[in-house]
Amino acid sequence: MAAKEPLVITAKDEMRKWSRKMRSQGKSIGLVPTMGYLHQGHLSLIQEAHKHSHLIVVSIYVNPGQFSPSEDLSTYPSDLHGDMLKLKSVPGGVDVVFCPKNLYDYNNDSDEKQKNKNGNENLGAGGGDGNGVVSCVEEKGSVHETWVRVERLEKGLCGKSRPVFFRGVATIVTKLFHIVEPDVAVFGKKDYQQWRIIQRMVRDLDFAIEIVGSEITRDSDGLALSSRNAHLSPEERQKALSISRSLSKAKAAAKEGQVKCRELKDSAILTITQAGGRIDYAEIVDQENLKSVEEIKGPVVFCIAAWFGKVRLIDNMEIDI
Amino acid sequence: MAAKEPLVITAKDEMRKWSRKMRSQGKSIGLVPTMGYLHQGHLSLIQEAHKHSHLIVVSIYVNPGQFSPSEDLSTYPSDLHGDMLKLKSVPGGVDVVFCPKNLYDYNNDSDEKQKNKNGNENLGAGGGDGNGVVSCVEEKGSVHETWVRVERLEKGLCGKSRPVFFRGVATIVTKLFHIVEPDVAVFGKKDYQQWRIIQRMVRDLDFAIEIVGSEITRDSDGLALSSRNAHLSPEERQKALSISRSLSKAKAAAKEGQVKCRELKDSAILTITQAGGRIDYAEIVDQENLKSVEEIKGPVVFCIAAWFGKVRLIDNMEIDI
Repeated sequence: MAAKEPLVITAKDEMRKWSRKMRSQGKSIGLVPTMGYLHQGHLSLIQEAHKHSHLIVVSIYVNPGQFSPSEDLSTYPSDLHGDMLKLKSVPGGVDVVFCPKNLYDYNNDSDEKQKNKNGNENLGAGGGDGNGVVSCVEEKGSVHETWVRVERLEKGLCGKSRPVFFRGVATIVTKLFHIVEPDVAVFGKKDYQQWRIIQRMVRDLDFAIEIVGSEITRDSDGLALSSRNAHLSPEERQKALSISRSLSKAKAAAKEGQVKCRELKDSAILTITQAGGRIDYAEIVDQENLKSVEEIKGPVVFCIAAWFGKVRLIDNMEIDI
Repeated sequence: MAAKEPLVITAKDEMRKWSRKMRSQGKSIGLVPTMGYLHQGHLSLIQEAHKHSHLIVVSIYVNPGQFSPSEDLSTYPSDLHGDMLKLKSVPGGVDVVFCPKNLYDYNNDSDEKQKNKNGNENLGAGGGDGNGVVSCVEEKGSVHETWVRVERLEKGLCGKSRPVFFRGVATIVTKLFHIVEPDVAVFGKKDYQQWRIIQRMVRDLDFAIEIVGSEITRDSDGLALSSRNAHLSPEERQKALSISRSLSKAKAAAKEGQVKCRELKDSAILTITQAGGRIDYAEIVDQENLKSVEEIKGPVVFCIAAWFGKVRLIDNMEIDI
């Protein structure tokens, strides 16, 4: 199969211009937002996107807005050359790779060029939301100060230990939606809470964009694919399998009638802890509103976050009984 | 001149469909968002919009998201019939009047229809942003939970006494932008902070929309036009003239070399208080970042909010020296 060479775009205006031109020709556009260091999981999102739109845009941007200064922004893995090779060979191809440099840099804006004669500091968003929530964007003194918050869904699960995370995700996705103007966007269910938050945001803010959730891709041993897996030592990787193993066990138990979440969670926590993992959370929640469930009566999802060494992994499994 | 009959649209989908059809025909669209009870100030925004786009959409929607439960949502004046008459006769006309019923009602959404089998309450956004900030949207138990915040600019001036106001404004404007998909939107400088917040939001979230600020319209006696003026008794109206009078006086004094803001503010506060007004704030701030200025060295704006009886009025004047 002949490889398809994607168009590489770095400028916002050029990206939007391409999209509008394509739309005027009757083409629909699917967006797959990524932070790069692509693996088979990302490629499966692209294949999913092909089912929903004529053309595919993959964005590659490690978003400082979703990292707190104490998190792993500086060590987040990156390999643009390798990513491009993978995108060239993905079945059906990719039309555009959008890899902007800094989406929070507005220095080319005329009103920022203006010298502030009144002697006021024009830089810095000034302390986040008043709850001490600050991301790497504020830390770097960016003038960016607008944030999209999905206030209820952002609070639980990963939101507890990562208070700036979903604020940053919702905001960067909003920006990408406005730049790329897609008809469809595909998100992996691996980041289950993120997927639900984006769905909710799209509804609440009346975006004219269809959000598609794509199933988790796993290695043959069961480990959910993640760019962060690259940081696992072989031993840690082996131990990390306890997450998917415990999720599968819980699902099987539920199917056989164990609907008490306390028991299901305790068993999973034991399995992972015994394997050497450190639990961040293990929650069985409603698939829609992500609220904790005591007894399974409808569709739930079992979400787990755990540390293996210095690597924090997340995984989940939907349980439909 | 023959009156032009605007198309009245109430459904989101129909609104967006109209905009897309017009855009495909090469027409640009200007949006003038209003809360109705239109006066000459609104009509001047429409005339401004005519300079920037082929077609004009005026939205009429009293947004519960920008009122706190203790504010005047229930008594906010409304007169759709009168509004339609005015819109028919405005020079150049209006193409669409978009007057949706409830932009926070998602009951037609499929995922809300779904019965929540896990017994979790799916209603209610659950307590706002954790700072006790709650608007009439949450109070009414809406499932809406996504808010856009311009975190620095929203805090001063009107933001101090109206903590949910700009969160609600930024959010409803985002929704209207996604529904109407305009090329240009016109905001009155009467609501100076609002105008700057929307400009900042558009930059930070990469909206492809030009924001135009339109000059304040005043009655012949100097009172800035406002829908809330309707609630003033003749006596209160007379007293309220002290706001514009004090602003003009300050501007003249600054032009003549009085650049100490403390003096300028004290004089204005005295004038208004002596007239029987109760000051909410009187601030001289940088036109861009709205930060308080001690000595005028560049473009500033003098912003005042004051109560006359039960009516809170705002006004401002740009001072460019």
